Amino acid sequence: MKPKINVISLPVSDLEKSLTFYRDGLGLPTPGINEGIIAIELDGGLSLFLIERNQFASFSTLAQAEPHISHSSVECILSCAVDSKEEVDTILEGALSTGGSIPSPAKEEAWGYTGYFKDPDGHLWEIVCPKNRAD
Amino acid sequence: MKPKINVISLPVSDLEKSLTFYRDGLGLPTPGINEGIIAIELDGGLSLFLIERNQFASFSTLAQAEPHISHSSVECILSCAVDSKEEVDTILEGALSTGGSIPSPAKEEAWGYTGYFKDPDGHLWEIVCPKNRAD
Repeated sequence: MKPKINVISLPVSDLEKSLTFYRDGLGLPTPGINEGIIAIELDGGLSLFLIERNQFASFSTLAQAEPHISHSSVECILSCAVDSKEEVDTILEGALSTGGSIPSPAKEEAWGYTGYFKDPDGHLWEIVCPKNRAD
Repeated sequence: MKPKINVISLPVSDLEKSLTFYRDGLGLPTPGINEGIIAIELDGGLSLFLIERNQFASFSTLAQAEPHISHSSVECILSCAVDSKEEVDTILEGALSTGGSIPSPAKEEAWGYTGYFKDPDGHLWEIVCPKNRAD
């Protein structure tokens, strides 16, 4: 297996809320909602699919699993590196102003300046300005 | 935000089992277990971190969320495209022989020949040979 993840799919409960959050709050490029999916092209040939919960279930139940949407437990953390501490703060502000949540303030960690946010469905993101970039 | 996901982190309950599965079953490149993490470099500048549950919690609890490890519900689906139907079948066989599970046989879907497997912790993967590649 020569591995290449093409798509990360996450279930969401309200596509309009997710569109506001990811497009307007985070500024991510997307054509909008299409057949129950918000498709976002990220760098590196990777796409993020935000899929309406029932439609996500039509895939996950093929694998005998229900969609997990929760603010109290997470199965994955999606981490992005950015070039400045200001960018970390800007992203957190955008998230907070469009339906996301910031569980704790961004702060210096061993690996760099780090902030976490949850999207409107509790999906957890980590935004890091690595030490070597901020020097 | 110019988006680039650098790392996808998943919590796992038994690092040795995960190492057997991802390295030996799927054939993914990794230096092994290092400080509670199995780091796997994928194509496209993306890394997969399999993180021991308690260590994952040390990150996720910063965001007030516990690790979710379950075979009955999933928060994400990780999708990979491969070049042949045989490769889909080979990956599923490798998964099944090293502690993974195949909830249902691979089959033709509208978008291509598709198989799902769960890793030993229930993390769900989709392997697809797209229609245009199999022609």
